[in-house]
Amino acid sequence: MSILLKNISYLDIKKECIVENKDILIEDNKIVKIGEDLEDLTVDNVIYGNNKLAVPAYVNSHSHLGMTMMRNYADDLDLNTWLNEKIWPFEAKLTDEDIYWASLGSIVENIKSGTSTVCDMYYSMDKVSEAIKKSGIRGVLTRGLMDINGGGEERLEETRELYKNYHNYANGRVKIVPAPHAIYTCSTDYLKEIINMSKEFDSVINIHISETIKEIEDCKETNNMTPVEYLNSIGLFDLKVIGAHCTHITDEEIELVKNKNFYPVYNPSSNLKLASGFTPIDKLLKAGIKVAIGTDGSSSNNNQNMVEEIHIGSIVNKAVELNAEVVPAVEVLKMATVNGAEAMGFDAGSIEEGKLADIQIYDLNSMNFTPNNNLISALCYSASSNDILDLIVDGNLIMKNREILTIDEEYIKYKINKLTKELINR
Amino acid sequence: MSILLKNISYLDIKKECIVENKDILIEDNKIVKIGEDLEDLTVDNVIYGNNKLAVPAYVNSHSHLGMTMMRNYADDLDLNTWLNEKIWPFEAKLTDEDIYWASLGSIVENIKSGTSTVCDMYYSMDKVSEAIKKSGIRGVLTRGLMDINGGGEERLEETRELYKNYHNYANGRVKIVPAPHAIYTCSTDYLKEIINMSKEFDSVINIHISETIKEIEDCKETNNMTPVEYLNSIGLFDLKVIGAHCTHITDEEIELVKNKNFYPVYNPSSNLKLASGFTPIDKLLKAGIKVAIGTDGSSSNNNQNMVEEIHIGSIVNKAVELNAEVVPAVEVLKMATVNGAEAMGFDAGSIEEGKLADIQIYDLNSMNFTPNNNLISALCYSASSNDILDLIVDGNLIMKNREILTIDEEYIKYKINKLTKELINR
Repeated sequence: MSILLKNISYLDIKKECIVENKDILIEDNKIVKIGEDLEDLTVDNVIYGNNKLAVPAYVNSHSHLGMTMMRNYADDLDLNTWLNEKIWPFEAKLTDEDIYWASLGSIVENIKSGTSTVCDMYYSMDKVSEAIKKSGIRGVLTRGLMDINGGGEERLEETRELYKNYHNYANGRVKIVPAPHAIYTCSTDYLKEIINMSKEFDSVINIHISETIKEIEDCKETNNMTPVEYLNSIGLFDLKVIGAHCTHITDEEIELVKNKNFYPVYNPSSNLKLASGFTPIDKLLKAGIKVAIGTDGSSSNNNQNMVEEIHIGSIVNKAVELNAEVVPAVEVLKMATVNGAEAMGFDAGSIEEGKLADIQIYDLNSMNFTPNNNLISALCYSASSNDILDLIVDGNLIMKNREILTIDEEYIKYKINKLTKELINR
Repeated sequence: MSILLKNISYLDIKKECIVENKDILIEDNKIVKIGEDLEDLTVDNVIYGNNKLAVPAYVNSHSHLGMTMMRNYADDLDLNTWLNEKIWPFEAKLTDEDIYWASLGSIVENIKSGTSTVCDMYYSMDKVSEAIKKSGIRGVLTRGLMDINGGGEERLEETRELYKNYHNYANGRVKIVPAPHAIYTCSTDYLKEIINMSKEFDSVINIHISETIKEIEDCKETNNMTPVEYLNSIGLFDLKVIGAHCTHITDEEIELVKNKNFYPVYNPSSNLKLASGFTPIDKLLKAGIKVAIGTDGSSSNNNQNMVEEIHIGSIVNKAVELNAEVVPAVEVLKMATVNGAEAMGFDAGSIEEGKLADIQIYDLNSMNFTPNNNLISALCYSASSNDILDLIVDGNLIMKNREILTIDEEYIKYKINKLTKELINR
């Protein structure tokens, strides 16, 4: 399979500029050549780039794909009511089949907002591996591990099985990664076991960190330390860490982890909607920390639209800092591309020769790009996911003119509606 | 002209519920009947409502339509640099023709995000009146009045001429309203003159209020009062007032105006992006004040997407108050419908017999509405403007299946690109 993007402008995210009118040749799953007047006779597929912009596909560094059926199910509620009275009772009824179709639903939204890669924390991860394979995107899949209500060892064993069966599945597009859910759902001994497993797998580790004020206060009371200090004390930061939320990370904690292999994941919509608070993104960036960005699940967002996430993730910080210069457009685009890809461990996230071919193509004819004053600003501040025409992942065209080619969006919607009705009546 | 919405569900915004499977009959510019099995033989146009939702069209209560050419032109800058070095020099070059086409560009975006009505503050308002007429939407048009650099009387005279020629133009869809730009661009005497003109016209008055901290501090220094106190002292609140932004309105000011005929307009994207701050929406609502909502201009937003505004306008307040229950979905939808229509003085904003027929139709087959757990939540938290299929304004179908029927979107984009290039080279 080869694709030639012919005479197209593209975002060079590392040099923070737009490169105009180049040919980009994709062979197998890689970008092999960027140049001018590249041979187009022998390629399988030519995409003509007039009035289009190639952008590194987005990396959604934190989601719960299986929560689609809880979209718009529990809103305008405080976190405890939301979790205890709505989300957990609903989740208790979810079957493997529900999670498979719900995950495909989330994947549809990710694809349609230009996303090649999702870091998912949920369960039934064998089914999710199949959904990822079928859809053509990449997944860093993490079975949420917890032991506060028992069952910890079974879940660890499940992760071990998943690792054996699905790690590097689907041409390497699936990775299985150990993931303690959070400090408030895992005992210290259990956290240590998971850290050891990650060391054994030579793996990154994925965890929710400092999402709410309650988490910080409880941790201080129990451990006499803040969450990052506590996790550091038990060796978590000896590993590469993907830390979801980090809403209430303190200045001292930032100092502690700034030279570690640590990727906090910003979840602006979810942090706002659940009233968790404002993540200090400006401080994290100024400390040189590579922040990634994600949607969180559709029960708290309430969708999987990475373009919205980038937009909201930028503008909120300006008001928090009362400074319009902070967290500029290009930094948020880095979170959604290079930083995310690096966190996930895929050699992608930028349009360069040798990189994995994960590219989305925007329609510059959209009113959101009219006039064309600054394409980097446009991607962050005015664009809509509807402006994304095509998506290439791992060298395969998986969306063309907004039609997904790998999975059947209409059938997935039908299944989700049907299964949700059945679940609610169970 | 008559339109029958056949067997459609609709949002009853006043009762805060969805009414299922009704027929809605529109004759001339009004909703004349809501019922079951209404006669469909004699109507001009039947829209079949299966898997669709009729929603009151949105009211964008604060914008600057003519700023499209400055979209993505000046971002990530502090307010002074943004205004003095970028926006004002650009604006100085704008011609009547530029503003006409730029306004049509903004109107395209408003229509495509379900908006029937825009409150615009800018200049060349005769041209904007023509743009409103041609597009089919409603406009409350306000020539921004200021006298700090002279020319105050000419601008007042211009407003008088506009009122004579365009007030109630286009089947009453255009209203001309006096509008002092802000306290920092108008002398006290000039403000009093405008207040008198509004009394003479028996008109609402439109003004920017308390947008930035600097405005408050300067006002305290000059007048020994906060902006709302100062405006109250010179009689502004004897009138009906549309007050844009009100970002830094204080508790004392809320007390002062809560029983007045005062409609603050929330501009979440702009307030965040320009680092103006967080408007205390929860406090305003709890004081019983009818808040409206708007996009502001495309130089500071950077688009005219009311669906995004509703989404952002809800979730940000939850984090500000650290309470997920505040500013719930239905309240933000009220801001964008009934409250906005009331502020603008149009008998619209809700789907009821006798109201003006301003209705948008959402596609419930979208993934954003899948599954259908709660349509009110969906409109606020998961919907995209792309889910809006049709728009009816003043009883006329002006968008059908996302194609605008009244103005030529492609030609408008062509003109905006061309005129922007010419302006930058002038």
